[in-house]
Amino acid sequence: MSPIRINLYSDTQTLPTPAMRKAMAEAPVGDEQRGEDPTVNRLCEVVAELTGKEAAVFLPSGTMCNEIAICVHCRPGDEIITDRTAHILNLEGGAPAALSGASIWPLEGSHGVFTAEQVQQGIRPESRHTPRSRLVCVEQTANLGGGTVWPLETIQSVAEVARTHQLALHMDGARLFNAVIAAGIEAKKYTAPFDSVWFDLSKGLGCPVGGVLAGSAAFIEEAWWWKQRLGGAMRQAGILAAAGLYALEHHIERLAEDHRNARRFAEYIAEIPGISVALETVETNIVFFDVTATGLSAVEISDKLKSYGVLIGATDKARLRAVTHLDISQTDIETAAKALREIC
Amino acid sequence: MSPIRINLYSDTQTLPTPAMRKAMAEAPVGDEQRGEDPTVNRLCEVVAELTGKEAAVFLPSGTMCNEIAICVHCRPGDEIITDRTAHILNLEGGAPAALSGASIWPLEGSHGVFTAEQVQQGIRPESRHTPRSRLVCVEQTANLGGGTVWPLETIQSVAEVARTHQLALHMDGARLFNAVIAAGIEAKKYTAPFDSVWFDLSKGLGCPVGGVLAGSAAFIEEAWWWKQRLGGAMRQAGILAAAGLYALEHHIERLAEDHRNARRFAEYIAEIPGISVALETVETNIVFFDVTATGLSAVEISDKLKSYGVLIGATDKARLRAVTHLDISQTDIETAAKALREIC
Amino acid sequence: MSPIRINLYSDTQTLPTPAMRKAMAEAPVGDEQRGEDPTVNRLCEVVAELTGKEAAVFLPSGTMCNEIAICVHCRPGDEIITDRTAHILNLEGGAPAALSGASIWPLEGSHGVFTAEQVQQGIRPESRHTPRSRLVCVEQTANLGGGTVWPLETIQSVAEVARTHQLALHMDGARLFNAVIAAGIEAKKYTAPFDSVWFDLSKGLGCPVGGVLAGSAAFIEEAWWWKQRLGGAMRQAGILAAAGLYALEHHIERLAEDHRNARRFAEYIAEIPGISVALETVETNIVFFDVTATGLSAVEISDKLKSYGVLIGATDKARLRAVTHLDISQTDIETAAKALREIC
Amino acid sequence: MSPIRINLYSDTQTLPTPAMRKAMAEAPVGDEQRGEDPTVNRLCEVVAELTGKEAAVFLPSGTMCNEIAICVHCRPGDEIITDRTAHILNLEGGAPAALSGASIWPLEGSHGVFTAEQVQQGIRPESRHTPRSRLVCVEQTANLGGGTVWPLETIQSVAEVARTHQLALHMDGARLFNAVIAAGIEAKKYTAPFDSVWFDLSKGLGCPVGGVLAGSAAFIEEAWWWKQRLGGAMRQAGILAAAGLYALEHHIERLAEDHRNARRFAEYIAEIPGISVALETVETNIVFFDVTATGLSAVEISDKLKSYGVLIGATDKARLRAVTHLDISQTDIETAAKALREIC
Ligand SMILES: [Ca+2]
Ligand SMILES: [Ca+2]
Ligand SMILES: [Ca+2]
Ligand SMILES: [Ca+2]
Ligand SMILES: [Ca+2]
Ligand SMILES: [Ca+2]
Repeated sequence: MSPIRINLYSDTQTLPTPAMRKAMAEAPVGDEQRGEDPTVNRLCEVVAELTGKEAAVFLPSGTMCNEIAICVHCRPGDEIITDRTAHILNLEGGAPAALSGASIWPLEGSHGVFTAEQVQQGIRPESRHTPRSRLVCVEQTANLGGGTVWPLETIQSVAEVARTHQLALHMDGARLFNAVIAAGIEAKKYTAPFDSVWFDLSKGLGCPVGGVLAGSAAFIEEAWWWKQRLGGAMRQAGILAAAGLYALEHHIERLAEDHRNARRFAEYIAEIPGISVALETVETNIVFFDVTATGLSAVEISDKLKSYGVLIGATDKARLRAVTHLDISQTDIETAAKALREIC
Repeated sequence: MSPIRINLYSDTQTLPTPAMRKAMAEAPVGDEQRGEDPTVNRLCEVVAELTGKEAAVFLPSGTMCNEIAICVHCRPGDEIITDRTAHILNLEGGAPAALSGASIWPLEGSHGVFTAEQVQQGIRPESRHTPRSRLVCVEQTANLGGGTVWPLETIQSVAEVARTHQLALHMDGARLFNAVIAAGIEAKKYTAPFDSVWFDLSKGLGCPVGGVLAGSAAFIEEAWWWKQRLGGAMRQAGILAAAGLYALEHHIERLAEDHRNARRFAEYIAEIPGISVALETVETNIVFFDVTATGLSAVEISDKLKSYGVLIGATDKARLRAVTHLDISQTDIETAAKALREIC
Repeated sequence: MSPIRINLYSDTQTLPTPAMRKAMAEAPVGDEQRGEDPTVNRLCEVVAELTGKEAAVFLPSGTMCNEIAICVHCRPGDEIITDRTAHILNLEGGAPAALSGASIWPLEGSHGVFTAEQVQQGIRPESRHTPRSRLVCVEQTANLGGGTVWPLETIQSVAEVARTHQLALHMDGARLFNAVIAAGIEAKKYTAPFDSVWFDLSKGLGCPVGGVLAGSAAFIEEAWWWKQRLGGAMRQAGILAAAGLYALEHHIERLAEDHRNARRFAEYIAEIPGISVALETVETNIVFFDVTATGLSAVEISDKLKSYGVLIGATDKARLRAVTHLDISQTDIETAAKALREIC
Repeated sequence: MSPIRINLYSDTQTLPTPAMRKAMAEAPVGDEQRGEDPTVNRLCEVVAELTGKEAAVFLPSGTMCNEIAICVHCRPGDEIITDRTAHILNLEGGAPAALSGASIWPLEGSHGVFTAEQVQQGIRPESRHTPRSRLVCVEQTANLGGGTVWPLETIQSVAEVARTHQLALHMDGARLFNAVIAAGIEAKKYTAPFDSVWFDLSKGLGCPVGGVLAGSAAFIEEAWWWKQRLGGAMRQAGILAAAGLYALEHHIERLAEDHRNARRFAEYIAEIPGISVALETVETNIVFFDVTATGLSAVEISDKLKSYGVLIGATDKARLRAVTHLDISQTDIETAAKALREIC
């Protein structure tokens, strides 16, 4: 089989660029869990500033960002309200229950975006018999929803309901900057209503490892206890943080290119007979498409694409997901789309 | 306000009869957690026989029966598949996550009854990212579904899917004998496909305290460790078990009367303008009815009923739930229905 | 083998007396988890009064009293400071870790009683690396310590250290009234420094089932959530609570007799060649004795005693534990001691 | 205050060397959680080979290695037997209880090393009341014990007791290679009896981040589920693994130099009046010393040392701990010792 040359599997596949590698190799470092790594410290300051929070903590993955936030906000028996497609519900190994003893009440949102009214209905009545509603979690952008951008007004109305009922608010901002670039709204505006928020460095931003979680100083102090407990406290992690600082300077604006490429890809393949794609949902760098009408299964199409050197993953029997990122050029998009046309 | 004379709030409200009290007062007892209470031992033997299992353990509540079963079947990170209306999801304080670290994947069943196909779709794919599907839980009868009886064939097809995927099967049989009497199918037939099953003594059977959990000898041995850990190991519990033995002898057949009363009540109130009741779902001793069209809220109606000495609880803004049981006569039913007609 | 006529295995073996059974059989009852059981309510009021706390909750066992208190006081990662012989560490199935995620730091006390200085040394320094010291637990009387009474001054000095470090204080008062009677100090004095306290109804007090946990109104409200979650919420539990009310009226003063019997037994067997008993530690109703010098193992002696109709349990290779209670008369003590003399 | 030039705080303070940084910058990388990072894969193969196990997994910290092993071996209610000075008990934030629901039964070993007989005594009897003994954990070298090397025969006799009682065996080999070099015994011999073992890359081996956990293929498959759940699954982690491969080639043999330096330091300061050091325990790169007789507290001495540019941490009121590593030369040792002589 030909090697994969065009990897649309996920934006987590991004490789560090030579310039990013150079920044990492030259980074001044120290013991980050003693607060002595200057590069990690700098990254945390920058992220706190970007998200408008008092403090931030560097962690080895986005999953750990989510799970630590949940551990800090929730006690055993508490319940989290989020979308049925949420990463914390579907792709973190059941960690909210396993680590925090917290349940999840899933809402039936639209492409991963739910409404204030749905939150209202999902809040438990006062009763010792029920789980205790405690946290609302918003995923920006909504990954399994199709890279959907949460509109600022929706966020604000959801936040208002949460506040009224003394619920905490957490943003899983894995792809926060895709929303920032797609909507032209600065990060701080999106994150303002949240008690905690994080974004991933290793997805569209192109870093090899890590995410940064931000919140109040008290929240981050508690998060540090969990960072130690879960084994997320590292040593000379400035090597990794240096990539983050580089990415925040050089890789945010260029996300617009990923969005243009996703759009191009979606529009191109929408013309292929048998492929169905909801163009209105392609807002950022993710394109879900349905291949039922081709007579081939999603896995079959994924396998055939590999022989063209193209990797696009099947997410279920009928659907595939393509994700654009900094290793994907406009030409790659055209090549991938043509391969798809030949197959279907 | 007049005292409540007709208590349709729940079948948990049943009071021990004089004959049951006498049986309790005369019960031979011993230290049950050392296996030396003859009355508890006898009850466990009878329940094991009734449910067709190797062994059984007496516990202070149905919630503990469910939660111990989940603790034995699941490890942290595992996922339970059940109906969105399930007691374990809505009315046990988030205990599956809090005590076992287990998540719940809720299915959208019909009146609390889901299909084999829905189970199939709810099973997670093989992936280290997801929770691990581990247990299917069936509630017989489905309380918040309206006292619905799970048909034997539905149980068997659900069990087949579970077996195919190496999932364990648990029956929350809180009102198992209501199903047995309503359908004329013996308990053993319903429980045969399950790894664990329990039924409640303190609901329709009229005992003051307790439930009995049954399963294989190995399962019950593990359940005993959790009984100790959760504080369910008691001492001279034969006092309580004596009520259970009495109820199994005298209070099962009479559930038919509760079902007739529920049916009468449902048919009567279905005629009241503004009240809506899905008669086809009234299979056992529970009647949910909607009062939207009366112009009154459920709470308002519940409050007005109290002045007639009738207690029927509001379960949300528009619905109330009436439950018949051994302290409710046909006359009580007629009185309650008339009160409702006067109010609406 | 002859039946056991003299059961010194534990004071949990006490059987309800005819008068207690009568009180139970006649008790007015209701749904205790809805706050409607008048007998349970009365018992909780009496216990709150006796212990000088705002509120109390009835539970099916002492283990549940301890574990609920720990669940309320601790969050995952917290640490409990207590004696190495403590019931919560040795005899509750690892529940503090299993249910609360709390660790235990064991102190090497003297006969189950530790000092303020030991607590001071057991408190963790401020550091994100360590567990978080959170709760000090005192067991009155200290069961595996030999039924030792915690002196009031020791309690007060331990409490002072705990307060200085913002630690919560819990009393496992399983045999609190044995201390009250032995020392002539009222319960309220012992319990005053504690945030939570419980005592057992089913040990020396002679009830079949249950313990009562007391604390501030806010503490008890939280305890109720855990009572539901663990399955300790019962229905017409007044049947059991009636025994508790009876015992509080009739079975406290008579504990003095159990203490005299334990003393008699200890003094008698101290004379038997090969048996060693630390007479100065026999303060209440528990007598540990060492049989190493008899040349027989503790289990062998326990087995031989059974043929005399006497039950005394071996607690390890060399030691046995005898516990006096309301089913044990002075004659029984003499018979048991004589049997022991014949055997050794 | 003068900057720290001689950092004896911990071997975790080691900075990556230029050659190590170069290896990292040039590492081929991929998505490690999809099994596609060639450098991570290579590191895992090398570690599996070195430790004689079927498989290995790369993790962001030693704490995560320990905690994942515990999560895999233990279920809630299980108990771990280890030394009272163990890292898992004292320096991982109470994670065994918080994440696994497991308790720890601490043994009073000698400098962190316990005996087979102590393990035997620490195993719980068969009883539903107690925690369930499940895992024995050995720390090689014993950090808080003073860098003590576990003798091979002690390991083997401890393992035999564990096997006899069906307990699992885990080695916290944070400084395994210090033992290997000090004793001249190859890693594989030490690790042979263990079900799971890990060593740290970021201590004496000089890497910035990470540890590697090894065991059977089935154990590592389970460990991967927990790696996802805890947020230890990274992306292009080959950057970090490259440092590990470099260290395994270049930084093992040189640990002998760290041991000579520790020895020199210990012998030098043993001569200083008021300083007490147990020379026989200085087997590797860690030197604990007592300063009680100087009339100064440990913190005072630590502070004074800083003004000489020397960092040695106080571990309690009377003791300090100095740790040698690859950034510490023989001259540094002499300078530090002289500073100490001037201060005391
Ligand atoms: Ca990347
Ligand atoms: Ca989209
Ligand atoms: Ca009842
Ligand atoms: Ca004693
Ligand atoms: Ca009793
Ligand atoms: Ca290092």
